[in-house]
Amino acid sequence: MINFASENYAGVQADMMQALIDVNKGNEPSYGNDAVTAETIGLLKDILGNDIEIYFTFNGTGANNFGLGSITERYNSIFCADVAHLYVDESTAPESFIGCRIYTIPSESGKISAESLRRAIIRAGDIHHPQPKVVSLTQPTEYGTVYTPEELKSIKDICIENDMLLHVDGARFFNAAVYLDASLKQMTEHIDILTLGGTKAGMMFGEAVIFFHSKSNSSYKYHLKRSMQLASKNRFIAAQFQAMLKNDLWKDLAQHTNDLAKRFEQEIKDIPGISIAHPVQTNAVFLTMSPTLYEKMHQHFHFYYWNDLRNEVRLVFSFDNTVDEILEFVRLLKEYTRE
Amino acid sequence: MINFASENYAGVQADMMQALIDVNKGNEPSYGNDAVTAETIGLLKDILGNDIEIYFTFNGTGANNFGLGSITERYNSIFCADVAHLYVDESTAPESFIGCRIYTIPSESGKISAESLRRAIIRAGDIHHPQPKVVSLTQPTEYGTVYTPEELKSIKDICIENDMLLHVDGARFFNAAVYLDASLKQMTEHIDILTLGGTKAGMMFGEAVIFFHSKSNSSYKYHLKRSMQLASKNRFIAAQFQAMLKNDLWKDLAQHTNDLAKRFEQEIKDIPGISIAHPVQTNAVFLTMSPTLYEKMHQHFHFYYWNDLRNEVRLVFSFDNTVDEILEFVRLLKEYTRE
Amino acid sequence: MINFASENYAGVQADMMQALIDVNKGNEPSYGNDAVTAETIGLLKDILGNDIEIYFTFNGTGANNFGLGSITERYNSIFCADVAHLYVDESTAPESFIGCRIYTIPSESGKISAESLRRAIIRAGDIHHPQPKVVSLTQPTEYGTVYTPEELKSIKDICIENDMLLHVDGARFFNAAVYLDASLKQMTEHIDILTLGGTKAGMMFGEAVIFFHSKSNSSYKYHLKRSMQLASKNRFIAAQFQAMLKNDLWKDLAQHTNDLAKRFEQEIKDIPGISIAHPVQTNAVFLTMSPTLYEKMHQHFHFYYWNDLRNEVRLVFSFDNTVDEILEFVRLLKEYTRE
Amino acid sequence: MINFASENYAGVQADMMQALIDVNKGNEPSYGNDAVTAETIGLLKDILGNDIEIYFTFNGTGANNFGLGSITERYNSIFCADVAHLYVDESTAPESFIGCRIYTIPSESGKISAESLRRAIIRAGDIHHPQPKVVSLTQPTEYGTVYTPEELKSIKDICIENDMLLHVDGARFFNAAVYLDASLKQMTEHIDILTLGGTKAGMMFGEAVIFFHSKSNSSYKYHLKRSMQLASKNRFIAAQFQAMLKNDLWKDLAQHTNDLAKRFEQEIKDIPGISIAHPVQTNAVFLTMSPTLYEKMHQHFHFYYWNDLRNEVRLVFSFDNTVDEILEFVRLLKEYTRE
Repeated sequence: MINFASENYAGVQADMMQALIDVNKGNEPSYGNDAVTAETIGLLKDILGNDIEIYFTFNGTGANNFGLGSITERYNSIFCADVAHLYVDESTAPESFIGCRIYTIPSESGKISAESLRRAIIRAGDIHHPQPKVVSLTQPTEYGTVYTPEELKSIKDICIENDMLLHVDGARFFNAAVYLDASLKQMTEHIDILTLGGTKAGMMFGEAVIFFHSKSNSSYKYHLKRSMQLASKNRFIAAQFQAMLKNDLWKDLAQHTNDLAKRFEQEIKDIPGISIAHPVQTNAVFLTMSPTLYEKMHQHFHFYYWNDLRNEVRLVFSFDNTVDEILEFVRLLKEYTRE
Repeated sequence: MINFASENYAGVQADMMQALIDVNKGNEPSYGNDAVTAETIGLLKDILGNDIEIYFTFNGTGANNFGLGSITERYNSIFCADVAHLYVDESTAPESFIGCRIYTIPSESGKISAESLRRAIIRAGDIHHPQPKVVSLTQPTEYGTVYTPEELKSIKDICIENDMLLHVDGARFFNAAVYLDASLKQMTEHIDILTLGGTKAGMMFGEAVIFFHSKSNSSYKYHLKRSMQLASKNRFIAAQFQAMLKNDLWKDLAQHTNDLAKRFEQEIKDIPGISIAHPVQTNAVFLTMSPTLYEKMHQHFHFYYWNDLRNEVRLVFSFDNTVDEILEFVRLLKEYTRE
Repeated sequence: MINFASENYAGVQADMMQALIDVNKGNEPSYGNDAVTAETIGLLKDILGNDIEIYFTFNGTGANNFGLGSITERYNSIFCADVAHLYVDESTAPESFIGCRIYTIPSESGKISAESLRRAIIRAGDIHHPQPKVVSLTQPTEYGTVYTPEELKSIKDICIENDMLLHVDGARFFNAAVYLDASLKQMTEHIDILTLGGTKAGMMFGEAVIFFHSKSNSSYKYHLKRSMQLASKNRFIAAQFQAMLKNDLWKDLAQHTNDLAKRFEQEIKDIPGISIAHPVQTNAVFLTMSPTLYEKMHQHFHFYYWNDLRNEVRLVFSFDNTVDEILEFVRLLKEYTRE
Repeated sequence: MINFASENYAGVQADMMQALIDVNKGNEPSYGNDAVTAETIGLLKDILGNDIEIYFTFNGTGANNFGLGSITERYNSIFCADVAHLYVDESTAPESFIGCRIYTIPSESGKISAESLRRAIIRAGDIHHPQPKVVSLTQPTEYGTVYTPEELKSIKDICIENDMLLHVDGARFFNAAVYLDASLKQMTEHIDILTLGGTKAGMMFGEAVIFFHSKSNSSYKYHLKRSMQLASKNRFIAAQFQAMLKNDLWKDLAQHTNDLAKRFEQEIKDIPGISIAHPVQTNAVFLTMSPTLYEKMHQHFHFYYWNDLRNEVRLVFSFDNTVDEILEFVRLLKEYTRE
């Protein structure tokens, strides 16, 4: 069955798989003390600057919670969009592992406004209340939309005003970079800590957590181990990231999936009874679709009914999706809507 | 450089790597809802019985702490050997993620005695004191030694007497099974919860946590997610376990590494100034060796100075080690000791 | 200065203080193993029924978090009003000590509706999401309003439907009972776990946490100790509760403070520019008042500016407030509003 | 029955009770914002110096865990004696609330040696292992013995060498001061954080946690609230501390209980079959006594069988014990031992 459900349904992109095969030679020190990990860190520093610290984790939930747990005290609060993965899809990891309160900001098409954020940050200095410490944005958002550099800056300004840090959950960060036509360096300008997603971009497993403006003697490494995210054979995560970064492979892959989304939008926008629910900016398209129609389409394609109240479905495009698959979806959709 | 330092220095064994390549076809539902995961669970149930629950994790620290966190309340205590990985090499994950006290039992060559354990379990029912809930053994131990079925039974009896559960950290479980010439089913007879190690046995990543005597409606699955150990593309863990279990590959691999340890023991036992520190039962050999000699040998081989006080070094054999590598070590050792 | 700010500004009511003096004779076993604690538990069982378990804590935050931490797993969620003390005034105790997510329900004059609650309880059985386990109501609410027995029942019904428990934060529970003219037994009909407040009702310190429908061999006692709330000299908490319950002293005290609130409402309701913001049902009155006026009044009386957005102030009446104090407030208020 | 079991069996000493009565006048801001709390903090600063921060808690377990939780990260370890209250009598509060590992040092008569401590502090900088951060001593120890200034200094030196902090659990701190004939200022010379006990010294409830060398903008206050230890009506804790400190009442009380212990030692040391188990330095005496004899004596006196393996009983003297009570114990003891 054709998959438009999740990039996690897709397997491993060919270059990443080749990297896994290639790196599987001889022995290497464990727990990230290997040459491949060192090289990959070097590569990321070449791209993003030297005053950063980089750690690798197995998955996105691990990355977010390790990262946020490393920069907060247990009396702190974290602010994110009401639809943030951190809040709606990571069980109680934030509470039971980090120990912080999460406050949500109402979002529009996944994005929060600086104004809403400013209003939400209250009671700093009040011992009875969780103390604001981090704003966590998703870039691109869970609705595929992208914060502009100006929007990011205005949110970062609020962080600075309130002595807070800006975390970005970049599970699909490459897609946002392609949309903005920005370098990774430009993309991270206002960010204090970034979850840089590998899995959804085509890796078998692996994310990177990048701390900007890092000081020596940081304690992040200790948090990594206690978060149960330190890989024994870390070279296999690092090698995939190398493949991803080499020759800007990430750019090709993100361009491909962003393009698929745009193409899909083009193909379906005039079909009666179907409407695009959110701006199509990266590799996801949200449509309104009746439950009945969804049931029919769902027999042929993996995709999620995302929001019951608004009758929205989500299609998200993976590195291995093709235009033909989209056309097949559209063909069938037209058939069913004609009925 | 030749690796006798850790199975984690080794890469991925060929059949596992092939399994990763083979399973990388088409799309599959994520988070363990795929056909491959289901098949692997079925396979494990065929081997171990039907009243079990099986979850997969990324690594051993994740497996131990997810597992133990699923069967304890935060006023409980866990008893393990003073040299247990859980206690000495998993940072504060047990405290900060599980919230329990760990009590250690003095060990001999890695093993605890039933008698020591019995003495250590105190103050049940006393609200001022952590309440005993789990005994966690390592099988084989960190010193490569193996609990006999009788020893396990005597420890399980203490668990039963005290209304406690028996957890086994089986990071190298297959090696113990081969040493005891026992089936996996026989190996798990007295166990309530097992960490079944994949990584050290040749996988790229992945462990299984198996809950025996499981009841329906358990809550383990919720703990898995909050432990940040639920793999997005779980088929890649499951497929490796399938390869490991198919045609008893695990047996061949463990036999190979156990044999290497025995061969090594044979080769070095009569070298003057060297003595075997612990019974060689699985794939590790511990030697006494002066720091000076270690420094020399360490220039040619990866291996750890394990215990400063007792001048012990550890050599552990991985699936990709060979007899020739051992002979090279022995040759050089003899050369240096002759000097 | 006259206090309308908080019952916590008041000292200890005379009968409670006398109880403290009287119980300070001879020695008694510590940690609640004394005769006075046993008697008090007996007294509460006479009133509330025998299938309950009762524990004492130092303060309300301790009571709420000990109680909720005893009935939840760390993958659970707790639902409460957006203005609940548990959520807005207990720092991150719920997250960092209990480990659960708190979801808030929009409230009107402090109360949540069954309908809003029902809509909020989502994704049961979904491992990616916190699992609904407890509804926590405040009775009376932070706005002094009271859930009727019918409202409580409709909320309890939702709990039952969803296999959830109903917790009530009764920091001012006696005031609600007096308002409803209900016995304590009637008041607890639908409740699974109650925080029964002593401090705000006139005690020096001390709250009771009551678990209804308790089974033998519960583990609450272990949670009490780990929550750091077990008093060494518990007889001094127990004795105050005895005084509170003897001859229904609680009823007299709550009647007095409820009456003060009603009287205050009568006196000020026709003053121009002042309006009552929420129904006056127990011992608090919320008024709309300009910041300028507040500044003036605040020089003579302790009371809080409660809500900046709505220009609301709170006056809450303690056991030692008097009608004269109210009349003095009203006099001055009239003077300032006339200006 | 006469109490030699615990200072927690005793009630409230007369001056403290009078202070509670006296402070119960009028209203005062809550949560420690009252004048009495401010005065008490001033008083303590007069005694101990100005660069300290002082917080009050309800009980000793709360004090220790709030204090230690405020100065540690969740990847840290805390070192204490194997008999420390923190380790043996505070349930899993250290693990489940603080999240740190506790390592114990073997003790003799309750005291640890600098040498043992030095040996125990290992693997600093090793991410796989909890990172050493605090040494927690009990002064006087659980066996009533006292660290000399030289011993404290040698332990503090180890802390400094290892970039660790020195915490002292001073549940009976006044008794140690009287034994050493030292001022409170002298007593705290090497200490970074002190739990200053009030309850065992004769208060109804209340301890102080004192952070030395404190910097402005510390975050301790936020930890206090999330630890559920912030008292609503804090003046009642503060007032008792004022009474304790006024005219050095603490000195008289501690002198009295220390004297009782010395007298008791004198009276019983020549009784056949009884021997003093540990040096008598403060207000506790440990004796060896057969279980049979204990059973007989225990019918007349509250006291604990402290150590089964060594046949040790503990008698501890409270402010309200008298010489006559001791003589009665001795009389009966002689009678039973003659039989």
